[in-house]
Amino acid sequence: MEVQTPTRNYGFGAIITAPYEQAVERTRVALKEEGFGVLSEIDVRKAMKEKLDADFRPYVILGACNPPLALQALQADLGIGLLLPCNVVVYDNGDGTSSVEAMDPEAALGIVGDNPAIVEVARDAKSRLRRAIDTLGHSGT
Amino acid sequence: MEVQTPTRNYGFGAIITAPYEQAVERTRVALKEEGFGVLSEIDVRKAMKEKLDADFRPYVILGACNPPLALQALQADLGIGLLLPCNVVVYDNGDGTSSVEAMDPEAALGIVGDNPAIVEVARDAKSRLRRAIDTLGHSGT
Repeated sequence: MEVQTPTRNYGFGAIITAPYEQAVERTRVALKEEGFGVLSEIDVRKAMKEKLDADFRPYVILGACNPPLALQALQADLGIGLLLPCNVVVYDNGDGTSSVEAMDPEAALGIVGDNPAIVEVARDAKSRLRRAIDTLGHSGT
Repeated sequence: MEVQTPTRNYGFGAIITAPYEQAVERTRVALKEEGFGVLSEIDVRKAMKEKLDADFRPYVILGACNPPLALQALQADLGIGLLLPCNVVVYDNGDGTSSVEAMDPEAALGIVGDNPAIVEVARDAKSRLRRAIDTLGHSGT
């Protein structure tokens, strides 16, 4: 399995030298330190096995939510739940490293259009997620 | 509570004449008929109460996943988990009606950039979600 560089126009991430399970645990801790709880968790490998009998690498989608920011966003736009929570994915690169990537809230919430309150929440959420990713890894672009 | 029109540039929906619990149940059925399982479920009202002691209307975020489409998307772009699953929200309008809204996969996946496989998956997911919403309600725009 190749190590994909986790720099995307809709997210940012880091490759960390840790096996998958440990990477997931460290990600939880880093998110918590920035005020994000994990409200949902999808084990992609397990879902693919169960639903399609397909083999997929260890991969989890964590739904990270900073409750005060989420409340602000929902009060500004009731439909914003369509873009919540902020996804953070962790997956196994198969070489002793794991990738951790976070959705870029400015990219995601950017499709909402001009709403100053949403823009502010997105900026705040992005700073927090970036700090969480930065504490985790080498690369934080 | 006012009834917000559920037409947005990042989603589409319908207002249905059904109390909240029933609307959630009908939404699950409609999604299932289009091949979407609900992989995650966030009770926003409960989360806001627990985390912030804030009162919020009944509101749920359902993470809808069509496994074959999700697998196709992940194989085309490993980071696409940042934008999965497709959110569908149901909330109480406080007047005997409920709103059901689905994320527009073309808007959401549009931020990924030019990837023909992703574009195709987004189009397919959107058709299915639109049919699900249409079977649910009066308005499907």
